Amino acid sequence: MKNLAEQAARNLSAVREKKPLIHNITNFVVMNFTANALLAMGASPVMAHAINEVEEMVSHAGALVLNIGTLTDEWIAAMIAAGRKATEKMIPIVLDPVGSGATKLRTESARKILSQTRVSVLRGNASEILSLQDDTSRTKGVDAVHDVDEAARTAGILSAELGSTLAITGPVDLITDGRGVVRVSNGHPLMAGVTGTGCTASAAVGAFLAVDPDPVSAAATALAFFGLAGELAGDSAAAPGSFMIKMLDALFTITPDQLQKGCKIENT
Amino acid sequence: MKNLAEQAARNLSAVREKKPLIHNITNFVVMNFTANALLAMGASPVMAHAINEVEEMVSHAGALVLNIGTLTDEWIAAMIAAGRKATEKMIPIVLDPVGSGATKLRTESARKILSQTRVSVLRGNASEILSLQDDTSRTKGVDAVHDVDEAARTAGILSAELGSTLAITGPVDLITDGRGVVRVSNGHPLMAGVTGTGCTASAAVGAFLAVDPDPVSAAATALAFFGLAGELAGDSAAAPGSFMIKMLDALFTITPDQLQKGCKIENT
Amino acid sequence: MKNLAEQAARNLSAVREKKPLIHNITNFVVMNFTANALLAMGASPVMAHAINEVEEMVSHAGALVLNIGTLTDEWIAAMIAAGRKATEKMIPIVLDPVGSGATKLRTESARKILSQTRVSVLRGNASEILSLQDDTSRTKGVDAVHDVDEAARTAGILSAELGSTLAITGPVDLITDGRGVVRVSNGHPLMAGVTGTGCTASAAVGAFLAVDPDPVSAAATALAFFGLAGELAGDSAAAPGSFMIKMLDALFTITPDQLQKGCKIENT
Repeated sequence: MKNLAEQAARNLSAVREKKPLIHNITNFVVMNFTANALLAMGASPVMAHAINEVEEMVSHAGALVLNIGTLTDEWIAAMIAAGRKATEKMIPIVLDPVGSGATKLRTESARKILSQTRVSVLRGNASEILSLQDDTSRTKGVDAVHDVDEAARTAGILSAELGSTLAITGPVDLITDGRGVVRVSNGHPLMAGVTGTGCTASAAVGAFLAVDPDPVSAAATALAFFGLAGELAGDSAAAPGSFMIKMLDALFTITPDQLQKGCKIENT
Repeated sequence: MKNLAEQAARNLSAVREKKPLIHNITNFVVMNFTANALLAMGASPVMAHAINEVEEMVSHAGALVLNIGTLTDEWIAAMIAAGRKATEKMIPIVLDPVGSGATKLRTESARKILSQTRVSVLRGNASEILSLQDDTSRTKGVDAVHDVDEAARTAGILSAELGSTLAITGPVDLITDGRGVVRVSNGHPLMAGVTGTGCTASAAVGAFLAVDPDPVSAAATALAFFGLAGELAGDSAAAPGSFMIKMLDALFTITPDQLQKGCKIENT
Repeated sequence: MKNLAEQAARNLSAVREKKPLIHNITNFVVMNFTANALLAMGASPVMAHAINEVEEMVSHAGALVLNIGTLTDEWIAAMIAAGRKATEKMIPIVLDPVGSGATKLRTESARKILSQTRVSVLRGNASEILSLQDDTSRTKGVDAVHDVDEAARTAGILSAELGSTLAITGPVDLITDGRGVVRVSNGHPLMAGVTGTGCTASAAVGAFLAVDPDPVSAAATALAFFGLAGELAGDSAAAPGSFMIKMLDALFTITPDQLQKGCKIENT
């Protein structure tokens, strides 16, 4: 597999140069932080959710990011309309199934989006991702995931079932398309203390997908970049308010060279 | 009455240990700040407003926080559905009647929520709270509130009429369930210069209610904690942008011991 | 024409003294930043979009700010209802046609608001504003705008066609009502790296319109003030996260005297 540290640097340079338009249909809580993070890293965010404009808007975009954090039926309909148009136009889609498993509406909505659009990368935590397997899944379920190798095997099977590259984030992120597995260990504990860091990581994956057609390398390098921003923020901030501001700063200041040296990506 | 300074320390410890899920149906302006403040203090925020998921979501929660800051009929319907389920399951509810009195929709919506659910704590400023008394109220109305003792008496009568503990915030907060009266004088003038500090104080009351079943002590200790965070922020920030970031930091760093020593709660 | 530097100082003093209520119907991404910016500069923000309360709410307001950044048909209907009531009551309106030209829904919605309400100031970037000219416009279109004098002439014609003072923002802002032209060159490059700075500049124009009935001087002085806050933020912050916080601080700390000295407004 290609050198992902070099690819990370190339992807960051390409985002800053091309400033891809990233169309987000995301939740109310994180819209501001996500837009600021995309701007800071060099992309061009747009938020648009009206059913009568999403297809036109996504047609201009380099990637579409769908996030069900504060969903309603109307928003899901808009996500599917945008997702179908993106699928038709070969525009990559990231799905962040926030809270899938917590309510039926969320689980079913995430499954509906997965079945009616072509999702390039599905990014969530382990419980969200596992909630999306169907009842006849060949995976062993949540319990199996305590073992690292078993987790990778489970993720690989799920990736094939769901037809999407998986990016399962946690202390160590696991990215797989069912063939190779990539692990990313960049990050900082305070990231869990700021709302929307997961959602914004998904948006970063969207930005990198807009310049890198390989879902595995786009997701892995975006998560390494985002995690490195967390590490740098953690160097100068010890509490979550200051930390989130320093993270936005780091997304702006990290150079491609710094990313290449600082990213902790492991191919297996 | 119990020692509320000690209770404040116990409540903060319990929030950090149990990380209660706080279900917020709140306004668009403050969602991000509120979620970050809840995370910083140690709680687990979730925002969900779809009529077809709020009952399921609130069933997982330690408290429900309803805030009418950017209401529409649909959101009020969701608040009432969630509130009824919470009432049925004995999950405590906080209502923040933002702007009640400013428009008929707000006043009527707040009254509707109060009559159709069991609100544990109603938190607002004096004019919002007083707008909720009915026309046959035995209270003397707004004018009476200039006198401190009369204000407490008026609040006590209103608390009984509305069937809810009142937390009337201002330079000094007044908390009453119609029997005892508690006053909290923590806080900082710059809190009024940041949007959503009132709304987020309500969410903090929700977090403390999730670990302390007594609405008066939960509200008083939460407001003391939130006000102390404002005081600490004011020690290192002289303008509202920096101040709000330092407030989030303080919500994270204040220790139970520091809270016990710093809280200014007066039982009367 | 009057001395606009002196007028800027007078307007800022008047906002801080009168604390005008600014009713915003704006997009989800910027609501928090806009509310905080209005509070920091001394105004009283309210966000309200329910069709059954906007007319009542706007009746209390010193200005109405309409922003189509995350529009839907329902929100546009609320904007028009609020705008008609404001027109009837002689309350000044600012329209920010975010993304006009990018989708039909946005262009048509902005035109609808312009035709059904009396917009005092239309603030946007050049491409948004130019998208609003009708097909029979006497202007030469986008290409003509490369030349500074031609841009001013085009803007003047458009202003007359649209029946509104134009505030076209960019590295140098151009404000015109078709008679005089005012240029404002305050600002900082990092403002483009923070989401909602344009939207919030529109809200600042609303705050100044609430105390200054002349749309040209209100818009020019508000943009000078907002740009000066950016300059001061840029003195102490080199990346967008810190920058946006310092901008909020500067909106709070800039004195009328400092504004009078620092504003870069040119009458032509």
